[in-house]
Amino acid sequence: MKAEIIAVGSELLTPDRVDTNSLFLTEELNKLGIEVVRKSIVGDNRDYLSAAFKEALERVELVIASGGLGPTEDDLTRETVAELLGRKLHLNNEILRYIEGRFRQLGREMPAVNVRQAMVPEGAEVLENPRGSAPGLWLEDAGRCIALLPGPPRELKPMYQEQVLPRLQRRSSNMRMFHRELRVAGMGESSVEQRIRPIYTRYAGLNTTILAAPGEIQIHLRVWTDDAAHAQKTLDEIVQGFEIALADRIFSQDGSSMEEVVAGLLTRNNSTISAAESCTGGLLAQRLTSIAGSSSYFLGGVVSYSNERKTAWADVPPELIQSKGAVSGEVAIALADGIRRHVGSTLGVGITGIAGPGGGSDEKPVGTVHIALAHAGGVKERGVLFPGDREAIRWHASQLALDLVRIHFLYNAGEPPARSAKRS
Amino acid sequence: MKAEIIAVGSELLTPDRVDTNSLFLTEELNKLGIEVVRKSIVGDNRDYLSAAFKEALERVELVIASGGLGPTEDDLTRETVAELLGRKLHLNNEILRYIEGRFRQLGREMPAVNVRQAMVPEGAEVLENPRGSAPGLWLEDAGRCIALLPGPPRELKPMYQEQVLPRLQRRSSNMRMFHRELRVAGMGESSVEQRIRPIYTRYAGLNTTILAAPGEIQIHLRVWTDDAAHAQKTLDEIVQGFEIALADRIFSQDGSSMEEVVAGLLTRNNSTISAAESCTGGLLAQRLTSIAGSSSYFLGGVVSYSNERKTAWADVPPELIQSKGAVSGEVAIALADGIRRHVGSTLGVGITGIAGPGGGSDEKPVGTVHIALAHAGGVKERGVLFPGDREAIRWHASQLALDLVRIHFLYNAGEPPARSAKRS
Repeated sequence: MKAEIIAVGSELLTPDRVDTNSLFLTEELNKLGIEVVRKSIVGDNRDYLSAAFKEALERVELVIASGGLGPTEDDLTRETVAELLGRKLHLNNEILRYIEGRFRQLGREMPAVNVRQAMVPEGAEVLENPRGSAPGLWLEDAGRCIALLPGPPRELKPMYQEQVLPRLQRRSSNMRMFHRELRVAGMGESSVEQRIRPIYTRYAGLNTTILAAPGEIQIHLRVWTDDAAHAQKTLDEIVQGFEIALADRIFSQDGSSMEEVVAGLLTRNNSTISAAESCTGGLLAQRLTSIAGSSSYFLGGVVSYSNERKTAWADVPPELIQSKGAVSGEVAIALADGIRRHVGSTLGVGITGIAGPGGGSDEKPVGTVHIALAHAGGVKERGVLFPGDREAIRWHASQLALDLVRIHFLYNAGEPPARSAKRS
Repeated sequence: MKAEIIAVGSELLTPDRVDTNSLFLTEELNKLGIEVVRKSIVGDNRDYLSAAFKEALERVELVIASGGLGPTEDDLTRETVAELLGRKLHLNNEILRYIEGRFRQLGREMPAVNVRQAMVPEGAEVLENPRGSAPGLWLEDAGRCIALLPGPPRELKPMYQEQVLPRLQRRSSNMRMFHRELRVAGMGESSVEQRIRPIYTRYAGLNTTILAAPGEIQIHLRVWTDDAAHAQKTLDEIVQGFEIALADRIFSQDGSSMEEVVAGLLTRNNSTISAAESCTGGLLAQRLTSIAGSSSYFLGGVVSYSNERKTAWADVPPELIQSKGAVSGEVAIALADGIRRHVGSTLGVGITGIAGPGGGSDEKPVGTVHIALAHAGGVKERGVLFPGDREAIRWHASQLALDLVRIHFLYNAGEPPARSAKRS
């Protein structure tokens, strides 16, 4: 089965907004083996809207639209589709009573315009919307299916899951999509591609997408098939190949973020951590504490931007800053060591660098960052030159700091490398 | 003039990627008074691609496409458009030599497939691409214009600016788009709407978009007209109305973020700042230091998650934590006061709260946050209950903390409220 998605709303044709409902819908449709062959974004204009539906219905068996079901003059989806299919609109008293009830609950009378939302094209099935006033509609016409859904994601998603999905499941073939996601740190897109290309190109019918996200590369593997066992076996085989090709660079196989992975390692190993940050300015602490329950492993952090603060909060000797410079491996080590002792945590991280745009020199250009990890057995330090702007340099530095913690547990605590947890 | 935008590439029909080139193109086209009436996203499929161009050319005078100009079998834009318009493709030796030269610079021979990129439809103008191997194409056909641009934004954007824009300027009318953006903090979308609706509805031909971003509301005003003076006067008048309706809630009129606004205030007032954060975990420090040059005003910050750290780093008396609880107005004040004295900064911010999902109680539910700002003249404290999840609560707390700093300068340092700086 092939599908088209139509997003309706003039605000989606401004420079400010992008349609994201279609990403959710595509993922869901793909799971059923339904391919999305086109997406269209149309404003609140009867002619353009009508053309979009007409064209789509000539090409595919399923059209899903979002938006344009509101009560105002601008909301044209309902009327346009009814007209296109030659169906009359009838007032549905049940919907009317429901909408009136919603307004009554808010202590208000239903404005007359909302009556439009109770109009239903002949032969259409109503998709209830407990989260808003606009009900959805399901229409079948000459073997094609049309779902009209409300625009707000918090109304659209549950309506799809609860009312569209079961209807599609009854119709769809046994084809399903099987998906794996691997995340890789510390490598560029092209080196990842170079290492895994010889593996994934051996498999016909496999869709491989390599995406560069800030500080990481995401590899998506997708197989459409009616043979679940074979799909899982194939994907296992490919992932095993990738594990050999990429080794400890794979940090996640279940969609977890780097901070989630590190949070899990700290918790499982009953370890605590502290951080003394300079150029990242609190970004590492913020990422470590973005995870629920982080107070069990994150004891404290300092943003020691000035030299004075490095000494006051992490006991970095002023002579060391004087002789080696604030941005140096030695000061990173002193920060890591100092904050660890100060706070009494299992691990201590120190970061110092030049995020730019100012402050660089020939010897220490913008992007120079030193990161150290102190633990009971000693200290590890990495000096790196990151490319990109201030934001990119800070993000990469925080990512590498987290990766050093991950690698520490991998080799010092006997933690197994990332393995697939979720499977779909 | 009306335009349609077509994004080409099967990767844009996966759940992982969204077309963002069209946002840039829409903004640029709007500036010329060109309205975008539809956007389409099509995969690397000749039939669907051909249909998209055919339909668009029947409706509008300008079609801009991105992607599908690469050297592989999947890249079909060039061939499909040539076929649709009945134009033969000819080898362009100049392009061929350029592509061969690019490969030579990389020390490689040009693969045979790249010859495709040197094929040009009859009558097309070549748009040079100094940043990649795929040249763009400009075609005119029966009064309609077609621009075929490469997909990567870093190639598409300069190609548009340097080679498409001048061609459109020659053709376009005197209609231009005039735009203003206001940002508002500390109010919900519907209260903003309620206050400004009576103002903006008085103006015909004005497009008003109200967008809810995390912790702020953005108001976009757009007018299309050939009368620049009248447009600026109208927009000035509307903005003045908004300034009365929203008062000090408007924090930016030039697209600046809250942290940029606060950075400007600190710099202009020769003030420095420090922060002691609990539930925000470094987010405030991270936002304050995300601005280039922040070392001149940000002296240092601590993430004092544990009670012990609150005492060690910000001199919060243990008895106070004992009697009032770590999440209390009194402890927020002590944090702000303590970090300010500890670091010796002009201002000190203290934040303590419950970001959840755990840790809430009947008396202090998840979302309870206390924020204090200490200055030479005293201290100000705000207790709030924020809605949403952990991420939302942390973001809102950091936003309110920044807003307290902004308001401090507004009323204590005689800073004028946000005024329009950039105008377009």
